Amino acid sequence: MNRRMVLYRVGQIMCLEAVLMVLPLLVSLIYKEFFCTAAFGISAAGAAVMGTVLIFVFKDKDNVMFAKEGFTIVSLAWVLLSVMGALPFVISGEIPNFADAFFETASGFTTTGASILQDVEAMSRSMLFWRSFTHWIGGMGILVLVMAIIPTDSGRSIHIMRAEMAGPVIGKLVPKIKDTAKILYFIYFALTIVEVVFLLSGGMPVFDSIIHALGTAGTGGYGIKADSIGGYSPYLQWVIAIFMVIFGVNFNLYYILLLKKFGVVLKNLELWVFLGIVMVSTIIISIDIFPIYENAGDSVRNSFFQVTSIMSTTGYSTADFNLWPSLSRSILFVLMFLGGCAGSTAGGLKISRVIILVKSAWNDIKQQLHPRSVTSVKIDGKALDNNTTRRVNIYFFVYMALILVVFLLISFESFGLETNLTAAVSCVNNVGPGLGVVGPAGNYSGYSDFSTIVLALSMILGRLEIFPFLLALNPHNWLKKNH
Amino acid sequence: MNRRMVLYRVGQIMCLEAVLMVLPLLVSLIYKEFFCTAAFGISAAGAAVMGTVLIFVFKDKDNVMFAKEGFTIVSLAWVLLSVMGALPFVISGEIPNFADAFFETASGFTTTGASILQDVEAMSRSMLFWRSFTHWIGGMGILVLVMAIIPTDSGRSIHIMRAEMAGPVIGKLVPKIKDTAKILYFIYFALTIVEVVFLLSGGMPVFDSIIHALGTAGTGGYGIKADSIGGYSPYLQWVIAIFMVIFGVNFNLYYILLLKKFGVVLKNLELWVFLGIVMVSTIIISIDIFPIYENAGDSVRNSFFQVTSIMSTTGYSTADFNLWPSLSRSILFVLMFLGGCAGSTAGGLKISRVIILVKSAWNDIKQQLHPRSVTSVKIDGKALDNNTTRRVNIYFFVYMALILVVFLLISFESFGLETNLTAAVSCVNNVGPGLGVVGPAGNYSGYSDFSTIVLALSMILGRLEIFPFLLALNPHNWLKKNH
Repeated sequence: MNRRMVLYRVGQIMCLEAVLMVLPLLVSLIYKEFFCTAAFGISAAGAAVMGTVLIFVFKDKDNVMFAKEGFTIVSLAWVLLSVMGALPFVISGEIPNFADAFFETASGFTTTGASILQDVEAMSRSMLFWRSFTHWIGGMGILVLVMAIIPTDSGRSIHIMRAEMAGPVIGKLVPKIKDTAKILYFIYFALTIVEVVFLLSGGMPVFDSIIHALGTAGTGGYGIKADSIGGYSPYLQWVIAIFMVIFGVNFNLYYILLLKKFGVVLKNLELWVFLGIVMVSTIIISIDIFPIYENAGDSVRNSFFQVTSIMSTTGYSTADFNLWPSLSRSILFVLMFLGGCAGSTAGGLKISRVIILVKSAWNDIKQQLHPRSVTSVKIDGKALDNNTTRRVNIYFFVYMALILVVFLLISFESFGLETNLTAAVSCVNNVGPGLGVVGPAGNYSGYSDFSTIVLALSMILGRLEIFPFLLALNPHNWLKKNH
Repeated sequence: MNRRMVLYRVGQIMCLEAVLMVLPLLVSLIYKEFFCTAAFGISAAGAAVMGTVLIFVFKDKDNVMFAKEGFTIVSLAWVLLSVMGALPFVISGEIPNFADAFFETASGFTTTGASILQDVEAMSRSMLFWRSFTHWIGGMGILVLVMAIIPTDSGRSIHIMRAEMAGPVIGKLVPKIKDTAKILYFIYFALTIVEVVFLLSGGMPVFDSIIHALGTAGTGGYGIKADSIGGYSPYLQWVIAIFMVIFGVNFNLYYILLLKKFGVVLKNLELWVFLGIVMVSTIIISIDIFPIYENAGDSVRNSFFQVTSIMSTTGYSTADFNLWPSLSRSILFVLMFLGGCAGSTAGGLKISRVIILVKSAWNDIKQQLHPRSVTSVKIDGKALDNNTTRRVNIYFFVYMALILVVFLLISFESFGLETNLTAAVSCVNNVGPGLGVVGPAGNYSGYSDFSTIVLALSMILGRLEIFPFLLALNPHNWLKKNH
């Protein structure tokens, strides 16, 4: 492997993180939280020095990037981003324990939204902003951001995109990767602004509007209130719920909409399955929770909000669904696995993978009945090559195995199966809340440092869809210097 | 599809069930339980009449069996076996509710061992015998029994064997399917007798020894005491634990042992992985539960017993592991998914499938790093064809989906996630006990009739490894009369 190039690229990302920290630093100045200004200043300086040293030491002319370099850069970058991003919390003393701060930052960047904070309302404003801003950065991917803004000297950046973008198949919108990255970030930025405007128009304060738009856009879920979104007006809850759906949809569709190819969007199977599952789940849960709210409007709103929040893996809540009846809780538990659409900022397995899994199983049944027939899985009229189908099936096994391993690793904690299992499922799928102790009204502060770090790493593994990390960890990779 | 032949074969199986019911009828005479004699007599007569009518009406010369006929026969036979087998319980009044009796019988035939009985010690002896005898019949498969004893008029019985025998690949021991079936039943019978001898030599009463040997051989788990095996001596507990391991191993290996090819057995990867998981789990749980027993011998024995019981999907218990620490319970929960070896009487995913899943994931990682390398999954030195690997991956998804669907269907029951999820996992994997309300000290009597039937059907789906059932249910199959 070309280690020089890997470290050079990681250096670029550290520098970018330093630049991004200037934003919360400015927020700390606005709100006169000067101890936070210092914390962000020191952290940004640290990241900048580290990044610059890496860039200068490992500058190299040989820039050919293969899959392994791409995967290693992404894995290393995400762990280091979370380590450096945790510094402001530790330095300011707002989250003094490093393991906790690492968890909080990894949870931010991976757009999980799980928190170890016992009292979120006691945090200073700039720290709350940084928390939510990490969602926004991590949602679309920091390496995609690097591609969009730093002049790329290599044509092989598709490996980075493949590692950081979610879903089974990565579509380039335009021939150049760099332009694709720019378009995606433009759509992302524009939709975020639109949400801010809608929230402001509903009377939400400016700071709150920005925080919640960042949290929704990245499908993260960090808020600023103990009761998440529960205290805001029904209008604001509806706005956030609808934007959670919007950010759970494949961004390619918005580009296609801009090109006015409405027919293509309307024929997109993944979109309809996603909306269909949201609708059916909302209806069943509305009926199930009706006795609690004794009001159709409240039942439907709370049901729709929680369904879109879990399905898009955002994690905001307007109600403590941990107290809901068994059926509703089970449906939400199953939705945690599904996640949003490929090419969105949502986590989870992704609807397109579920579709491919169901179709390949169905094909297999047909083939067992008619052994001589040859069939392949078709999505939106196009046949998928067998390699893609095979990889999706393998991914499903590795993904379930990861959940079980994380569950086993944290299961010496005495919270019982419901809490530990849903914590593992929620973190790997980047959802945020689980059931039991880690339910929407609870938090992850009860976990030991060991479990905290295991869960934080499981979020990064889940966010990068496991394989880049496994490939990067392959010792074979590190022993040979070049290829 | 050739419906005549399907119904003809089902008729044969009904007649065989009538013959098999003579055994519990004799037991009822020995213990002078004459109301049970009547119940078995009526039920056997019913099955015999139904079977004979089917045989005479649908006798057909066209006997060519394709995959769809084989799968349909097996699926239909298993449901009908459980329906007819439930009659003695209902008629005798010992389990008056039909849904409960169906659950108990399906749980017996599928070797699950989950029970709705609140007081097993109140049952009459002949009913207890019938319960445990269904384990023995279902363990190796009733259609395999049909093949071994009834003159087969078709060379295509491999489809039946494929549907009823567990595991990803079915090996014929000898060229003729009929002879393979005979050899398997001979080994099965001999090992059962050996266990009876070992139990008798430890001072267990004759009736108890037979019951527990039948329950161990089928990896079923029905006992006759409220505390399962907990009240028997440590020696008897060790005997049963070791036989649970023996019946969790691929029976082909015993045949190979008889041929004195010791080298082949020693090189069998699945065997070593199975024993390795048993050993590692036993050690970890022994340490975890040591504070409860304060004695190394008791800790190791209880740990080993529960691990082998869950891993072989038997379901006997010597301790209420529901009261064990979080880590031990989580390990047992994960073991429920694995199951025993292919070609054994155990349920679950099967170790060989897990090996294939891990190896194909590992291959995929290698291929992503070196795209031009071509690799295939090798087991015991032989390369598996890609079709097998693909099917195992697809099976894994369908299997997990089944568990989630069963869990959702029963989740309106207010027992909470831990009970409902482990009930679904335990029934689909044919284990028996779960955690929470359905733990080893509990039972399934709290479930509604709807959930009882859903769980009973999920056991049959799990026992037949899902696909035969899905293929049989395909409406396409039933509409066309021939092929």
